[in-house]
Amino acid sequence: MIIEIDFNSDEAIYVQLTNQIIMGIATSRLREGDPLPSVRQLADTVGINMHTVNKAYSLLRQEGFVSIDRRKGAFISIDVDKIKALEEMKENLKVALAKGCCKNVTREEAHELIDEIFDEYSVDRQEGI
Amino acid sequence: MIIEIDFNSDEAIYVQLTNQIIMGIATSRLREGDPLPSVRQLADTVGINMHTVNKAYSLLRQEGFVSIDRRKGAFISIDVDKIKALEEMKENLKVALAKGCCKNVTREEAHELIDEIFDEYSVDRQEGI
Repeated sequence: MIIEIDFNSDEAIYVQLTNQIIMGIATSRLREGDPLPSVRQLADTVGINMHTVNKAYSLLRQEGFVSIDRRKGAFISIDVDKIKALEEMKENLKVALAKGCCKNVTREEAHELIDEIFDEYSVDRQEGI
Repeated sequence: MIIEIDFNSDEAIYVQLTNQIIMGIATSRLREGDPLPSVRQLADTVGINMHTVNKAYSLLRQEGFVSIDRRKGAFISIDVDKIKALEEMKENLKVALAKGCCKNVTREEAHELIDEIFDEYSVDRQEGI
């Protein structure tokens, strides 16, 4: 899986890294049990600080996407607490929808976007990209 | 409008501040043309650094929610570029949906959440909270 960091983005690098790994899981490029590179390796490959990778891995663990084993290192391990997942998703959607609402995005347009994104994820999953 | 900052949150304070102002607009507590407090005033009231308030106001301006006038200070001014708004919303939704997808949230559940949130915003708007 290729990690692409936009160094000109307003989004913190550890957030970009976290999100890309989550996208990787959502589109099945990363699956339960798959190992992540070591902190040093990923830092070297992407050209970022080890501290930044550590921060991303900690966040991924905290949000229930990754486990960290002292020997094996970090690997994908999904905490499927559905109720918690729905609560967290609602919080995340609230901000995204509020931004849209301010700019007159309608309920119907929001539903269309949800379908578009789910369709994209399904295609990626089938193709195993 | 009351700003509440969670100092224990993982979310940066300027992001929390930005999001609360956006929520304020989405629920009509803040309307086009409404003035925002001065940087110093808001920093004092909330108990945060002026630099943090400045960062939030800059982000709000950049994202098209606020204008900053040298004399009048910051005020709500929505840049209603619908196409841009939809593009940005899609990017924001992608991350939120990816997180849910990993944890088996279904398309139907995502649609239900969208309706729940839109209903909440509509009630707030009507009540003028």
